[in-house]
Amino acid sequence: MSLEFDGPVPLHIQLKKLLKDEIIKGYYKKKIPSERELMDRYSLSRTTVRLAVSELVHEGILEKRHGKGTFISSISVQDWLGSFRSFTETVQDMDMNPDSQLLFHGKKSSPDKIKELLEVDEFYLIERLRFADDLPLAIERHYYPLEIGNQLKRFDLNSAVLYDLLESTLGISLWKAKQKITSGQPSKQDADYLRLDDSSSVLQSERLISDPNGKPVEFLRSSFRPDMYSFSIEMMRTRE
Amino acid sequence: MSLEFDGPVPLHIQLKKLLKDEIIKGYYKKKIPSERELMDRYSLSRTTVRLAVSELVHEGILEKRHGKGTFISSISVQDWLGSFRSFTETVQDMDMNPDSQLLFHGKKSSPDKIKELLEVDEFYLIERLRFADDLPLAIERHYYPLEIGNQLKRFDLNSAVLYDLLESTLGISLWKAKQKITSGQPSKQDADYLRLDDSSSVLQSERLISDPNGKPVEFLRSSFRPDMYSFSIEMMRTRE
Repeated sequence: MSLEFDGPVPLHIQLKKLLKDEIIKGYYKKKIPSERELMDRYSLSRTTVRLAVSELVHEGILEKRHGKGTFISSISVQDWLGSFRSFTETVQDMDMNPDSQLLFHGKKSSPDKIKELLEVDEFYLIERLRFADDLPLAIERHYYPLEIGNQLKRFDLNSAVLYDLLESTLGISLWKAKQKITSGQPSKQDADYLRLDDSSSVLQSERLISDPNGKPVEFLRSSFRPDMYSFSIEMMRTRE
Repeated sequence: MSLEFDGPVPLHIQLKKLLKDEIIKGYYKKKIPSERELMDRYSLSRTTVRLAVSELVHEGILEKRHGKGTFISSISVQDWLGSFRSFTETVQDMDMNPDSQLLFHGKKSSPDKIKELLEVDEFYLIERLRFADDLPLAIERHYYPLEIGNQLKRFDLNSAVLYDLLESTLGISLWKAKQKITSGQPSKQDADYLRLDDSSSVLQSERLISDPNGKPVEFLRSSFRPDMYSFSIEMMRTRE
């Protein structure tokens, strides 16, 4: 991968993409090369290098440490598949601090897919931006049958740990989940919330949770920053 | 989502994105609306609608059936996590026909990350485009320690089922795998191989397989079409 000096894409954007790609692929251990090295390596001006680096700092991929250089951010959440957990539990397991910001909650009656999955005609949507150590990592859209949503909405949905509320306060048993993982393009607004650039993808997950009687309790659709969030699993060659 | 008639993006591209998004989100069951309905709904010319639909046909998302309308392609591979399998096994489990095309094979000594994971100084790369029912769905890059790669290269790598060769012919035991799933942007070339448009993401997976002694046997980096491939898992709330 090299830079196109006569191409339509500004050089700092090209450098940013190149660095990001190298960081994600694991080319650097802890630090990226110094400004001087990047200027020499790619025949770029200091301004161009600084612009590229500062955008990566804004996105949370790099962090500047005074007098020590520019370090690769340590934010990397591994979501271990095996049992299903809340975002709060996953982030706490990584010794990071989870947080959330309520974006929307309310009654909805479309799309049809959600109604079919939850086996209802109307449902309740709770939409939250989720943080780990103050960086926005995920948007979670929780869909509930109305009788559950109407109970949840009485709590402070900014700070609530929804699965704690469901299990401990409302006495609803979360039993089994079927989860599907893929990727896609975020909407413009989701990209802004997650501080992703226009061309970035999101890691997407859909999960349907049911109670011990097989009754749907929650459908969760999540979009994650793919550079800081991944799903992990350990498997044997044959089913144990 | 609506169309921008005075925006910089051609209308057929906008319609294509809109339809693709709706198809992926499950708005339509089997067919998309007719040309006439799409023309009326969005005030578009027949040419624009046809262009959008024909690009989706080329990408394999839609298929035209003579006299019956335009159907949503039935290609959807679910990769069930639980035990690890080859692409061949996964596709066969969906009652589809797997195939492959060799893109590259040879000795390599970078990047460092692969050397560290395989605990070697040089390794052997086998790169293949993978098909399900003749549609390109994945690019698989298999990295092997040289002593394994040098044995594999004697076989026809276009048609070989690598895990069969490893297990049955070479007597190497594939025991345990650690897999990590995320998403990202494909290279221009990978996007072309997978017939993805420029803005599309790929679902990415990395998997390290070791033998019963914990010795690394294979590192596999795969990129999948996110509209036709997903990982699925069933989980309990607490570890069983």
